[in-house]
Amino acid sequence: MGSTERIKNVARRVAKWHDAGYQIVVVPSAMSGETNRLLGLANELMAQPDPRELDMLASTGEQVSVALLSIALHAIGKQAVSYAGWQVAIKTDSAYTKARIQSIDDAKVRRDLDAGKIVIITGFQGVDDVGNIATLGRGGSDTSAVAVAVAMKAQECLIYTDVDGVYTTDPRVVSEARRLKTVTFEEMLEMASLGSKVLQIRSVEFAGNYKMPTRVLSSLTDPMIPLEVEAASGTLISFEEDTNMEQAAITGIAFNRDEAKITVLGVPDRPGIAYQILGPIADANVEVDMIIQNQSVDGKTDFTFTVPRGEFAKSMDVLRGVKEHIGAASIVGDAKVSKVSVVGVGMRSHVGIASTMFRTLSEEGINIKMISTSEIKISVLIDEKYMELAVRALHKVFDLEKEV
Amino acid sequence: MGSTERIKNVARRVAKWHDAGYQIVVVPSAMSGETNRLLGLANELMAQPDPRELDMLASTGEQVSVALLSIALHAIGKQAVSYAGWQVAIKTDSAYTKARIQSIDDAKVRRDLDAGKIVIITGFQGVDDVGNIATLGRGGSDTSAVAVAVAMKAQECLIYTDVDGVYTTDPRVVSEARRLKTVTFEEMLEMASLGSKVLQIRSVEFAGNYKMPTRVLSSLTDPMIPLEVEAASGTLISFEEDTNMEQAAITGIAFNRDEAKITVLGVPDRPGIAYQILGPIADANVEVDMIIQNQSVDGKTDFTFTVPRGEFAKSMDVLRGVKEHIGAASIVGDAKVSKVSVVGVGMRSHVGIASTMFRTLSEEGINIKMISTSEIKISVLIDEKYMELAVRALHKVFDLEKEV
Repeated sequence: MGSTERIKNVARRVAKWHDAGYQIVVVPSAMSGETNRLLGLANELMAQPDPRELDMLASTGEQVSVALLSIALHAIGKQAVSYAGWQVAIKTDSAYTKARIQSIDDAKVRRDLDAGKIVIITGFQGVDDVGNIATLGRGGSDTSAVAVAVAMKAQECLIYTDVDGVYTTDPRVVSEARRLKTVTFEEMLEMASLGSKVLQIRSVEFAGNYKMPTRVLSSLTDPMIPLEVEAASGTLISFEEDTNMEQAAITGIAFNRDEAKITVLGVPDRPGIAYQILGPIADANVEVDMIIQNQSVDGKTDFTFTVPRGEFAKSMDVLRGVKEHIGAASIVGDAKVSKVSVVGVGMRSHVGIASTMFRTLSEEGINIKMISTSEIKISVLIDEKYMELAVRALHKVFDLEKEV
Repeated sequence: MGSTERIKNVARRVAKWHDAGYQIVVVPSAMSGETNRLLGLANELMAQPDPRELDMLASTGEQVSVALLSIALHAIGKQAVSYAGWQVAIKTDSAYTKARIQSIDDAKVRRDLDAGKIVIITGFQGVDDVGNIATLGRGGSDTSAVAVAVAMKAQECLIYTDVDGVYTTDPRVVSEARRLKTVTFEEMLEMASLGSKVLQIRSVEFAGNYKMPTRVLSSLTDPMIPLEVEAASGTLISFEEDTNMEQAAITGIAFNRDEAKITVLGVPDRPGIAYQILGPIADANVEVDMIIQNQSVDGKTDFTFTVPRGEFAKSMDVLRGVKEHIGAASIVGDAKVSKVSVVGVGMRSHVGIASTMFRTLSEEGINIKMISTSEIKISVLIDEKYMELAVRALHKVFDLEKEV
């Protein structure tokens, strides 16, 4: 939510659903910029503030939002009541700044809904066993929304975002990119984690675990568009098995611009070597994405992995520090690579996806630096300057611009 | 608390007390401007927001402060923990936006203090029986501080403000005004309610009810001034009986610039007439201060009272509406009056204070429009243009510039 003007629009939209007879629970995010403002104040005081105190601080952003949205609903004649996570209560573990929801008590909320009230609950936060506020970390409001929907046995969880759904790829890269009416849970996981960043990955996992139908739709449309139009808009994350079996093999092309590749050359191929290389990287809080290890030759092997580009320099430093210990010949890196992935549950039953992908890239003269695959995606690492070209070529060869 | 720079200073000051071996509980206010910012957002949405939701909203200001102060203390190597009112818990009634504290559980705080931690608690707020946040209203942080001090059986409650103590009168009006080292509880009540506005009146009442020694001192001094100097600075509100008996008769001159006087002329002097006049005023949420009713003549009487100047027009409107009903001859008002009061517990045992006051004003050519008295104060209403002159003359005639 941005300004109070934006809050008024949220209120109108919520009231529209309520007018149509739905019981509604709303989980608004903090006003835009507020969480950053608060964390900025903390960082003016200390480089690494205590996580419990950060949660006391950051949780206020959502508390402001719920109160304001409740007031905005009152202003248009609706009964509404706001609750902080601890009031509901939304119980979490004590992993401050990255807590996980353990349980949600639905009694208070149910009572209010049955009394005709719209209930507004702070996202992003809950309360632990000892009564401390714990936040779920960045983007936690999405996860809260899904968790509340599960607890309330909701018909559908609507997640209003600044995009109008999930696309076959980023429309800024491919103008023919098409909005998907549905994606499967597994596809959404791959699309989100590969950089489509529409929804926080944990919220998708949560929805998947409980098979909660979750719709991603735009918060920027006119709040008064007809309900039927809005209810069919966006992209529905579906949990029905194999909905795409008879459809296209590929659902979308995901990509991540900011990758960096590190190769540790000539390490002894002994048990535990992978841990000896990646352990120090994990200890430095760097997330590792793709990992490959080549066949060893003469007892020596090469070990390659990717990290976010912003962590490249730190990761290289860490590895140089342990180079002697792990017995590596040398360490080389390339911070100008991007990852491009084709994603689709249909891939399981279609042969030749990989060969079509590799042939297409080859025809465009794009060298593949690394390949990794899962059941429903194939990812390649390429020179960053070819990323857009690769995405466009793949979008076209798999006919993604066409409605199926 | 203002900027993070100011929060760092608060932390240094608190640490100084802790270093000297004191167990410390801190009740910080919201950062300056924050409460107004939040209430401003609510008013952009609705003219009269729901009080419960306003409390959800406004209480976040103090929550931000406690978390930041805790972090600032960590940054200088102190153990500290912050709590919102509901976490302590500070229990209140359900009169949202103007709640009263009912009880404070000291267990959690005591445990932390005994573990060597500095405890930081949100002022201004608590939680009611049904688990809703309730705020104490403007200035409630002072009241919270005193209440926490009482609950913890503190040795002294230090209230850091933007003034360095209670003065014999406002130094902006009388440059010779002198800071009082001690005032009695009763004097402080009269000084505060008469416009000295150093402390919220309810916090003084609270301190009085529990005889909690409370010191008003400046938050603007260098936080590293020696502890002994700081501990003796400001003004101590004392609860020892008659400490001022042997001292000066008068402790200070209070005043209130923004008064308005309303007289209802020629009303029938029958039982209940005062209520018939003041009832509608109270219903319009106007606070009435001085009230006098003259001796009746021929069964008719005049009834005069004062209201804050900002409420004058509304009050006149209300009375015009009920004029026929109460049978008044006419209603007259004067919105350009000020109140000046001499205050002192010594007044009880000294005769002639009133006559000295009236003679002094008369010698300055100042007409007295209304008089009211209590055991330890005499107030007069005068033309606002003579207010400064009256305060200066009275300050001088009672020798208030001299240390006793």
